[in-house]
Amino acid sequence: MTMAPTAVDVPSGLPAAISTPAPGDPRLSRLSLNQKTVDRWGVREVVHGCLRAGIPAVGLWREPVAAFGTARTARLVRDAGLRVSSYCRAGFLTGHDSTAALDDNRRAIDEAAEIGAACLVMVLGGLPEGSRDLAGARARAAEALALLVPHAQERGVRLALEPLHPMFCADRAVLSTLGQALDLAERFPVETVGVVLDAYHIWWDPQVDAQIRRAGPRIALFQACDWVLPLPADALLGRGMVGDGHIDVRALREQADAAGYAGDIEVEVFNADVWAADGDATVATLLRRHVQHVV
Amino acid sequence: MTMAPTAVDVPSGLPAAISTPAPGDPRLSRLSLNQKTVDRWGVREVVHGCLRAGIPAVGLWREPVAAFGTARTARLVRDAGLRVSSYCRAGFLTGHDSTAALDDNRRAIDEAAEIGAACLVMVLGGLPEGSRDLAGARARAAEALALLVPHAQERGVRLALEPLHPMFCADRAVLSTLGQALDLAERFPVETVGVVLDAYHIWWDPQVDAQIRRAGPRIALFQACDWVLPLPADALLGRGMVGDGHIDVRALREQADAAGYAGDIEVEVFNADVWAADGDATVATLLRRHVQHVV
Repeated sequence: MTMAPTAVDVPSGLPAAISTPAPGDPRLSRLSLNQKTVDRWGVREVVHGCLRAGIPAVGLWREPVAAFGTARTARLVRDAGLRVSSYCRAGFLTGHDSTAALDDNRRAIDEAAEIGAACLVMVLGGLPEGSRDLAGARARAAEALALLVPHAQERGVRLALEPLHPMFCADRAVLSTLGQALDLAERFPVETVGVVLDAYHIWWDPQVDAQIRRAGPRIALFQACDWVLPLPADALLGRGMVGDGHIDVRALREQADAAGYAGDIEVEVFNADVWAADGDATVATLLRRHVQHVV
Repeated sequence: MTMAPTAVDVPSGLPAAISTPAPGDPRLSRLSLNQKTVDRWGVREVVHGCLRAGIPAVGLWREPVAAFGTARTARLVRDAGLRVSSYCRAGFLTGHDSTAALDDNRRAIDEAAEIGAACLVMVLGGLPEGSRDLAGARARAAEALALLVPHAQERGVRLALEPLHPMFCADRAVLSTLGQALDLAERFPVETVGVVLDAYHIWWDPQVDAQIRRAGPRIALFQACDWVLPLPADALLGRGMVGDGHIDVRALREQADAAGYAGDIEVEVFNADVWAADGDATVATLLRRHVQHVV
């Protein structure tokens, strides 16, 4: 069950290695680099890395944006001509007292507006410590979300609900399937609340085809990475480069397109080996994998 | 997010420790000990352990039964007056050539009949090495299952399809939700093909309440353990004793009962710390947790 190791390229012995697509290659037109894939790169490095590689969009995270400055980030990406496919991440709304979380989410909405992000990714949060009350946590998150929607509308920011793989249900997100995410999103206007299709989180779902069709204009973002075995000691860091594992990313991307999605395809890989690698080498692998396995 | 450590009892400081229910306690009338919870015990030890503790049913595994002898196991459990709540485990039907797997499954059916098991637990299998074709694997497993059903009918053995947690989709079971298991089971007669409700595998599912209601007479077995954090390095061994984690086992058990299930409640804990503990101590903890958190 061993797969090719992550971030290593086509093994020798296989037919002609794929060459790295050059800047301007039309197959890169919807590609986005999520900053987390090159975890050691700050805002400036990731923007310059995208420019060197010809990647037209970037997914940014709050912590590095705060370190670089929100206004400065906004200016840099605008001057670079990059789209900001997503701003990661807000949410964590399942606690019993959501006052602080709501304040923080409102700030995240303001920041997303300032940097011109296509969406703000929302991870709803897990169960409070010691709790077994899933229904309660889900209800609290839905109530808190309803309180954020007017602020998002006012700022013109789209909230993108991200169902996480069910193995994160207890500690990170009581939102586990695309169907469940759509049930929640559909309570709100489509332009303000959408969903994230992250291949890693949804690929196993026997209902995924039907739910992607249902999602249609609710699809705010498509994220790509792969499911590699074995799972690592830290389940958060188990994602592989597209092509190294068991997910048919192209099939999911085609389904999203068939449902009307024409936005960016953002590569987000949480993986200690990838993080340890040279950023430009990771980006080059990612470009090749994109043409081999995604578009 | 740290929970009480597995197999350790009520911490001091909490109100009056629960005493261990004695043999004959009516609250134990549906309890079953899955042999895997006391992994170092062979067939003889687990049968004697059940008798000492007043546990009226046992879930047995093929390897220790083979080591002890099938006919001898059948005699021992009959003489002991124990029910065999399940026989674990057959399946693994997703391969491209299922000839050997089908033969092995037919033998497992024969063994289950011989020891008088209430059901034979079926884990369907994951993706073949390097494969991304989930639909193909699911279709092959369904076809193979159809070939086994006549043999099971003839032997009077009920096949119990077990949906596994989606984190096992790639390597162990392309059957990931109760709804999906029912879609498959419902192609066959209810007395021959049922489903397993294992709290660990189904608790996170936003549709679990509705699907348990739907399952009704298809419920062949209820298994209990708990979801504890953090996930261990080996995801297979991450299960906690009931009461140590985030699953509301009682609520799920009550839903199964409301759907008409009156069979055994089998405790199955895959956990290296539990396996290292003294078997009788594990059983005593399990009895207390059963009255505290299940019945």
